Amino acid sequence: MSSPSLDEMIAALKALPGVGQKSAQRMALHLLERDQQAARRIAQTINDALETVRHCQRCRNFSDTDVCEICRDDRREQNTICVVETPADVYAVESSAAYRGRYFVLLGRLSPLDGYGPDQLGLEQLEQQLAEGGIDEVILATSATVEGDITAQYIADTAARHGVSSSRLARGIPLGGELEFVDGGTLSRALSGRQQID
Amino acid sequence: MSSPSLDEMIAALKALPGVGQKSAQRMALHLLERDQQAARRIAQTINDALETVRHCQRCRNFSDTDVCEICRDDRREQNTICVVETPADVYAVESSAAYRGRYFVLLGRLSPLDGYGPDQLGLEQLEQQLAEGGIDEVILATSATVEGDITAQYIADTAARHGVSSSRLARGIPLGGELEFVDGGTLSRALSGRQQID
Repeated sequence: MSSPSLDEMIAALKALPGVGQKSAQRMALHLLERDQQAARRIAQTINDALETVRHCQRCRNFSDTDVCEICRDDRREQNTICVVETPADVYAVESSAAYRGRYFVLLGRLSPLDGYGPDQLGLEQLEQQLAEGGIDEVILATSATVEGDITAQYIADTAARHGVSSSRLARGIPLGGELEFVDGGTLSRALSGRQQID
Repeated sequence: MSSPSLDEMIAALKALPGVGQKSAQRMALHLLERDQQAARRIAQTINDALETVRHCQRCRNFSDTDVCEICRDDRREQNTICVVETPADVYAVESSAAYRGRYFVLLGRLSPLDGYGPDQLGLEQLEQQLAEGGIDEVILATSATVEGDITAQYIADTAARHGVSSSRLARGIPLGGELEFVDGGTLSRALSGRQQID
């Protein structure tokens, strides 16, 4: 259009998830017209993150240092590991404010066809931590899919070999969920997992 | 959380229009996990645009050069100027593919309380172009608001002083608009502006 470098910026912004041509246009024009300081900050923080962020040597989550802040936090329970698939899942579990233990991030799930085997998921590293002792429970918070279930089962077997018990997140009707809109599979799990009222 | 520079990046992305905490998180994690090249490109194109993009000396639209590509394009009709409020409006009119003339971007609309007078909108510059001659029509494509109307009237008066005719975009029912969902004001304009069927 009138400015090739603006068009370049719009094209680049389209790589963001959920952002198409219109949104990218709106974002670029907003940044240039109204908030050049924010534009500068976005570019700066992206470059900083690209340079700084690596994977924690202990839990494989994103970290600025070799061992991440969560792993270094002594106030967190050290005897529980919550195994999740992605760093986004750590954010999700943290937002529940119901968990105070450590994490282990698989960065994927067992899926041999996609090239994700135990090596890619760092399962040797996880097993080593289980072997070192001090861990009482592994909470398997992998996704509620076939692959997530297989991954959970694989890790549960590993944990059992080291005498560590495993648990899986409860499945059922989400909070505020109307029965009418809950799918059959979920309802079937909610029925079979029904809990006695005392 | 686990990485302060990731948190910084998420906070910076929240400055984008329509992006809250959740979307910013999803964007940052997507860029770091799956598309570091796109991340690099976003930062690079933002910095390039901030450095390169300025306002065209002729039409005030964004441009990489002193005079923008649209103004330099000889194939465009030079005798018509379409006056719009923002660079985004230029994109909108261009997308209609129904206009082949030049533009003039006000970068605002008359609104004395917000400090937008004729000087801020570059109206002197526009008047000079009208005075130089060669322009047959000014299409006033300012927004369909009270301030947009006042701005259009002001420019129409200026154009009239230089013997240039002005027009305003037609108002009525949008394409595909169901009568049931059109507001009363729009319907009233559509009625008073009704057109004879030949």
